[in-house]
Amino acid sequence: MNKELSSVKALTFDVFGTVVDWRSSVIKELNELGEVKGISADWDLFADKWRGGYAPSMDKVRKGELPWKSIDQLHRMVLDRLLNEFDISDLSEQEKVHLNKAWHRLAPWPDSVEGLTKLKHKFTIATLSNGNISLLTNMAKHSGLPWDVVLSSELARHYKTDKEVYLTALSLLDLEPSELMMCAAHKDDLLAAKALGLKTAYISRPFEFGPDKPNDATDDMPFDIIADDINDLAEKLGA
Amino acid sequence: MNKELSSVKALTFDVFGTVVDWRSSVIKELNELGEVKGISADWDLFADKWRGGYAPSMDKVRKGELPWKSIDQLHRMVLDRLLNEFDISDLSEQEKVHLNKAWHRLAPWPDSVEGLTKLKHKFTIATLSNGNISLLTNMAKHSGLPWDVVLSSELARHYKTDKEVYLTALSLLDLEPSELMMCAAHKDDLLAAKALGLKTAYISRPFEFGPDKPNDATDDMPFDIIADDINDLAEKLGA
Repeated sequence: MNKELSSVKALTFDVFGTVVDWRSSVIKELNELGEVKGISADWDLFADKWRGGYAPSMDKVRKGELPWKSIDQLHRMVLDRLLNEFDISDLSEQEKVHLNKAWHRLAPWPDSVEGLTKLKHKFTIATLSNGNISLLTNMAKHSGLPWDVVLSSELARHYKTDKEVYLTALSLLDLEPSELMMCAAHKDDLLAAKALGLKTAYISRPFEFGPDKPNDATDDMPFDIIADDINDLAEKLGA
Repeated sequence: MNKELSSVKALTFDVFGTVVDWRSSVIKELNELGEVKGISADWDLFADKWRGGYAPSMDKVRKGELPWKSIDQLHRMVLDRLLNEFDISDLSEQEKVHLNKAWHRLAPWPDSVEGLTKLKHKFTIATLSNGNISLLTNMAKHSGLPWDVVLSSELARHYKTDKEVYLTALSLLDLEPSELMMCAAHKDDLLAAKALGLKTAYISRPFEFGPDKPNDATDDMPFDIIADDINDLAEKLGA
């Protein structure tokens, strides 16, 4: 292990895309609902648009055009718009609530539980996601993710990549920046953490956006670790 | 199980005294330190005064005489005062920091891990302690407490029994009051939760304050469950 990483005591993980495969999970739930309700639609496109609506919704909150909203609330706003756009009108309120919670039931990538379990022996492992606390807690129970502590942008009332999110995690974990490593499949998340002095690990998830859309990996990434998956991260950290 | 309790989805636990035996753990660490450093003192009394200094310190923050402080910080304030009072002057800063973190290393009561593990199969189980997040996280790792999510007064910037603490837990877990049960060995904590509509379980810990000082149990306690310990709570909740 890189000697400069010997200071690391805790790891915070981005969740959507890094630990769980949101796209396949959401498409599967949409297909199942379509089957039950007799609705056909391009569910792959629906899932991509659902995820795609999330960053612009956060920006509206950032700009003050909307009051603070949890990711559950943002997901529901985008869902209501998409149901209209896809001309799907025969879902009950209960069905919409259940569908919106598909984001609480995302399946881990095949290496996630094993890799996190290894890392947990050596480090404190935490979420640091834009997902709200209840979403992350339900997901951990659903998918067996062995977090020591569930941290969320919700606790800062800011979304990543706002610096308040990382600073809140440092404060709650009572750590210096060099003692915390941010782990994510997204460069912008890691660059924001690195700017505050956190250590960083890029976890490659080439299929996060499906088979045809590449992830954001490049050859010149300035992170402490570049890992193929979470098992590889554990190996590179000697866990 | 009582039918009125079928709404309960999550349990929040007081920790000091309810889940862990702070008194024996702290006395043990004080004795060990005394041995190593060649200091004799009435360590039982020291531990009781350390714990006893905590409520008055919280009150100073409540009244605005002190800015917000984590429990680690309050414990340290009381520790420094007691070291002076007990005329103990030969501890290094590193030794004081380590001693203050005795509160991160409290041992569970014999039933706690087993009972919580049973309850976790049926409910979301969370801390709801005045202990700060890092303290509770370190304690869970140290003692194998299987929390789904670590919640703390720190997230509300209020201490129990201020209502903001319970309301913050409800908001973060996204639950209605009747869906959450507060579990504690202290009546004041449960009465505050009950006043907000939460369900309540009293867990008897007759030796929290040592063999000679009774706990606060009375015959007329208005709580949904009175349990002998956490295994008994699990049984009474059908978990």
